[in-house]
Amino acid sequence: DTKLKIFSLNSNYPLAQEIAELMGVELGKCSVKHFSDGEIQINIEESIRGCDVFIVQSTSHPVNEHLMELLIMIDAVKRASARTINVVMPYYGYARQDRKAKAREPITAKLVANLLETAGATRVIVIDLHAPQIQGFFDILIDHLMAVPLLSDYFKSKNFSEDEVVIVSPDHGGVTRARKMAERLKAPIAIIDKRRPRPNVAEVMNIVGNVEGKICILIDDIIDTAGTITIGASALIENGAKEVYACCTHPVLSGPAIERIQNSVIRELVVTNTIKLPEEKMISKITQLSVAPLMAEAISRIYENKSVSTLFD
Amino acid sequence: DTKLKIFSLNSNYPLAQEIAELMGVELGKCSVKHFSDGEIQINIEESIRGCDVFIVQSTSHPVNEHLMELLIMIDAVKRASARTINVVMPYYGYARQDRKAKAREPITAKLVANLLETAGATRVIVIDLHAPQIQGFFDILIDHLMAVPLLSDYFKSKNFSEDEVVIVSPDHGGVTRARKMAERLKAPIAIIDKRRPRPNVAEVMNIVGNVEGKICILIDDIIDTAGTITIGASALIENGAKEVYACCTHPVLSGPAIERIQNSVIRELVVTNTIKLPEEKMISKITQLSVAPLMAEAISRIYENKSVSTLFD
Ligand SMILES: Nc1ncnc2c1ncn2[C@@H]1O[C@H](COP(=O)(O)O)[C@@H](O)[C@H]1O
Ligand SMILES: Nc1ncnc2c1ncn2[C@@H]1O[C@H](COP(=O)(O)O)[C@@H](O)[C@H]1O
Repeated sequence: DTKLKIFSLNSNYPLAQEIAELMGVELGKCSVKHFSDGEIQINIEESIRGCDVFIVQSTSHPVNEHLMELLIMIDAVKRASARTINVVMPYYGYARQDRKAKAREPITAKLVANLLETAGATRVIVIDLHAPQIQGFFDILIDHLMAVPLLSDYFKSKNFSEDEVVIVSPDHGGVTRARKMAERLKAPIAIIDKRRPRPNVAEVMNIVGNVEGKICILIDDIIDTAGTITIGASALIENGAKEVYACCTHPVLSGPAIERIQNSVIRELVVTNTIKLPEEKMISKITQLSVAPLMAEAISRIYENKSVSTLFD
Repeated sequence: DTKLKIFSLNSNYPLAQEIAELMGVELGKCSVKHFSDGEIQINIEESIRGCDVFIVQSTSHPVNEHLMELLIMIDAVKRASARTINVVMPYYGYARQDRKAKAREPITAKLVANLLETAGATRVIVIDLHAPQIQGFFDILIDHLMAVPLLSDYFKSKNFSEDEVVIVSPDHGGVTRARKMAERLKAPIAIIDKRRPRPNVAEVMNIVGNVEGKICILIDDIIDTAGTITIGASALIENGAKEVYACCTHPVLSGPAIERIQNSVIRELVVTNTIKLPEEKMISKITQLSVAPLMAEAISRIYENKSVSTLFD
């Protein structure tokens, strides 16, 4: 029982702390600092020989810093004779370059998978990969958890009347995700169908499905600059929607995101804590739900060698 | 002949430019930018199919940014069907963690070697690794060039009288390097022999060798915070040295380095351009020599499949 060790790196200490508390363990002692020249210096301050080690780190901004922290930590844990090295990455960065869309592009999602394996990870636990196919980029075990139940339960607790709600995908790529939430809320779906009539002409927003007089819940995996979601929300209102909520798993929220959300018709944006939000992004319109119970459950099951498949969905 | 392509990433564009000019080629077209969330976005803007590609990048500060640029570029070059991927790293960062000095430490020099191989590098060209053993961390080809001839030639051109000069190693680890320079300048060597009599007591500087009335040339591979070199220089003067020069291959110069050098007894610090120095570090005491001719020669020979071994020393 003393063989489970959970370590947090610098990307999301509060989440790691919450996971450890839920599991009734202390976080492992390690320090992650920098040498004078900026190179990362990691010290693991307790024995982990023979242990099942879980390292909690999202590769959120600053992504290169957080990824290198993780790779160096994996190397240190490996050389300290850990039994297994389980990388808990609530947010998997570099996931959007997951195919060669144009000539001579990298596939960073695959590169990162290879780097994690090379460093010595034996298992990876993630939530809502940008594309589920990224699971196949790994030769080691990967557990792919879902935040849809968490987000759905939050909206369920609002007790909207069932025939009032419609779940909206902001683009074609997200329809499967919207479908999953719709099932849980017993609601229909709609799709925002962006189309550019000619090159260099503004996109036209066409809504597939009925939103008139409805409470719309937009769902996406990542909200980054918030362009898609805020423009989509306006299109819904223009098409007669009564109210628009939005939700996503990973609140990247870079550049103009907060300003756009603040000024948008979105009534409330519900996100999770796979990415730690700095103080200035915690505006009152944003509600943050914790994935700690989900992660704690997954870690317990993995440690006890039980199936985590019921957490997938 | 059109099959040689040299690309520069962001760490040292002037050096890459100089190498390309010496070789009479244009740098390959590529853009290295960031997405809004900070993820690196690389576009290679010309065909490199079947080419021998050389990527010039030092993993100097900010090291994690520069290393990730390099890994992503290698991935992109690989997927663009290059024939060979040659990584020109004038400065190899993370080299000082090259062994487990304490329990549960990472070995970052080995990790970086593995990451480069995993990304797809087929050959690596470096200058003055912190420890030559790092060559053995690679399973791919590695060429290890030396800056000692360049530094030695500079001091030769000062025409000091031979029996006036002594080459000084600032610590035990650097004696082999000092020996190499001493041979070129036909000078004797001396060693600064630091010793801590008891824990938490100041170090004592003992000079092994004769420096009285001599022109001392301190040589090191890396000057980082410049503590060792400036304290060593003072010790030499206290022991009767007439003048102290210092030189190194890699001017990391972090934290208090510039201030320390400015205020030190060092008359002139000679460095190379393996690391690009920002304007504010180009103080008049520092002379920067270019490794571009050495790198250009190495790249030409590798491209023509000739031996580079005479550049090693
Ligand atoms: N960090 C990022 N920020 C914005 N766009 C990205 C990022 N990474 C990849 N992309 C681009 O987003 C597109 C993929 O998005 P998607 O169609 O949603 O999978 C590709 O064209 C990528 O070039
Ligand atoms: N970037 C760095 N800056 C300062 N010290 C470092 C750095 N990387 C490694 N070290 C430390 O330097 C020592 C190795 O230096 P050396 O004996 O010169 O090989 C080890 O104790 C390392 O922990």
